[in-house]
Amino acid sequence: MTQPLDIAVIGATGSVGETLVQILEELNFPVKTLHLLASMESAGSSVMFAGKKVRVREVDSFDFSQAKLAFFAAGAAVSLSFAAKAHAAGCTVIDLSGGLDQALALVPEANGEQLATLTLPALITSPSAGAVALAVVLAPLKGLLDIERVQVVASLAVSAQGKEAVGELARQTAELLNARPLEPRFFDRQIAFNLLAQVGASDAQGHTAVERRLVSELRVLLGLPTLKISVTCVQVPVFFGDSLSVAVQSRRPVDLAAVNQALEAAESVELVEPDDYPTPVGDAVGQDVVYVGRVRHGIDEQEQLNLWLTTDNVRKGAALNAVQVAQLLIKHMA
Amino acid sequence: MTQPLDIAVIGATGSVGETLVQILEELNFPVKTLHLLASMESAGSSVMFAGKKVRVREVDSFDFSQAKLAFFAAGAAVSLSFAAKAHAAGCTVIDLSGGLDQALALVPEANGEQLATLTLPALITSPSAGAVALAVVLAPLKGLLDIERVQVVASLAVSAQGKEAVGELARQTAELLNARPLEPRFFDRQIAFNLLAQVGASDAQGHTAVERRLVSELRVLLGLPTLKISVTCVQVPVFFGDSLSVAVQSRRPVDLAAVNQALEAAESVELVEPDDYPTPVGDAVGQDVVYVGRVRHGIDEQEQLNLWLTTDNVRKGAALNAVQVAQLLIKHMA
Repeated sequence: MTQPLDIAVIGATGSVGETLVQILEELNFPVKTLHLLASMESAGSSVMFAGKKVRVREVDSFDFSQAKLAFFAAGAAVSLSFAAKAHAAGCTVIDLSGGLDQALALVPEANGEQLATLTLPALITSPSAGAVALAVVLAPLKGLLDIERVQVVASLAVSAQGKEAVGELARQTAELLNARPLEPRFFDRQIAFNLLAQVGASDAQGHTAVERRLVSELRVLLGLPTLKISVTCVQVPVFFGDSLSVAVQSRRPVDLAAVNQALEAAESVELVEPDDYPTPVGDAVGQDVVYVGRVRHGIDEQEQLNLWLTTDNVRKGAALNAVQVAQLLIKHMA
Repeated sequence: MTQPLDIAVIGATGSVGETLVQILEELNFPVKTLHLLASMESAGSSVMFAGKKVRVREVDSFDFSQAKLAFFAAGAAVSLSFAAKAHAAGCTVIDLSGGLDQALALVPEANGEQLATLTLPALITSPSAGAVALAVVLAPLKGLLDIERVQVVASLAVSAQGKEAVGELARQTAELLNARPLEPRFFDRQIAFNLLAQVGASDAQGHTAVERRLVSELRVLLGLPTLKISVTCVQVPVFFGDSLSVAVQSRRPVDLAAVNQALEAAESVELVEPDDYPTPVGDAVGQDVVYVGRVRHGIDEQEQLNLWLTTDNVRKGAALNAVQVAQLLIKHMA
């Protein structure tokens, strides 16, 4: 039996933070004391954990030496402000914001073995939902393919941007159905019944931070530091569940039977039947696996493998992966 | 001045057919008599044209020798049943259904010069909306790129499947917002706030007919019969306007400045500012041009050109292109 740990969750009132606390309970994670933390505005409320109300306190005044492990789920700005302090106080940080460049991206199913190379306390990133899904699916295929390039179009649910974004999609949709004039608030334009081809600002080269994050994380997760990855992240009018259209270019013909077999056998992957396809609403949401469908060659091109993935961006894409990394970590500590 | 023509529109009560009749009027197309035709269920109603009510008659009993030009906008089954008959009666057929394999795909901006090679009466295809948009944008770039492969994820609006599909998205959305149980009717599952990764049935190789159609049409339109094109067509909860994420792999580094210049100069293309991006609702719908944004290299890859296109799938993607082909045709006849 592992020693229970003192744990801090920063951003405990956000959608990922809330799910993270639920998953700690679901998976019977060995928690000694749970410190729930948030910004000043959200502090003071309570969250249920293991049958008890836990008060959410202000992160600013928290003494991180009280915790051995801290999950940062409050956005990049908060991670940048407090993660180094937590680390210096002896806390291993599992950051979900992508804000810590020096942290190691980990997905147990893909590069879990790299955890053994870390000295504690460590700085760890639980990658973006898209990178987690791609790593879970591509890691078991690495041996079968001679990957030249991975091409991804990621259709992101609004929930990746928090509860306010979820409310905004619902509000805009209701306004439109009631034929009332639309005034976008959270998003800079209409998201209801529309597609936004860019998530966040673009840099001088035209790429966004979420796109660059996905590329750099996936290279680490697959252990292929120079892999060519092309990615476009699109905001779609879906509440929960990210979907990824993936084309993998291999240097040799792709053996589809072997690919299907490897996906059938892969942990955390649910392969749907060839005549079916998975959807965020119908399959992925609330599930702990990445759904895969539309497994096929390119048209007239045996060297290409096409896949469609869908994943719960809040669970496996964020909170669940972070807790699974922590589970691996306590094995490593033991 | 060109001679006015006797014209038939088959599928005159559908969304594409209705728009087609409007565009004939908008563009002052030289119409002598307009014959509006539809299946038995839709015959009997009337459509306004040039200030007059025109009765819609049954296609089954129409004598095609009364028309010189017939637009088929009623789906592949109707085209397969009547296009050959129309052609045999001396009618040039412009088919919008994609059902006629032997018809030449034409987009004036891309391969308009091929029209001169046809003997009349001819069988012509006005291609699928995605192929039209890709041809309009890629044709002016052909000389700048040494294209090795084109990779497309097409997010299709429900209107491509007709009025019933539009009604179904609205109905499902209203049911969900009112927390009523959802029973999918037109689509086989929930389309509201969801993505369907497959449009129509897939064949033994896992591809759908719309995907194969887009590939074969684009090869003809670009005059590159062996071009590698990979495509995934996705049904998105958008009423009008198709969006395409495009990655073009070139055999040499892509000169972005030259690409932007060529797109600025291209007919039927509207290039948005680098810090902006076009959306179906905000830009494309109701417009006669293809909007292009997110022009950029791949991450760490100068040989890749990424683009985001959005287009009105009913206008430039269907009805408008068909009428523009007809305009070229009457010049050719003159």
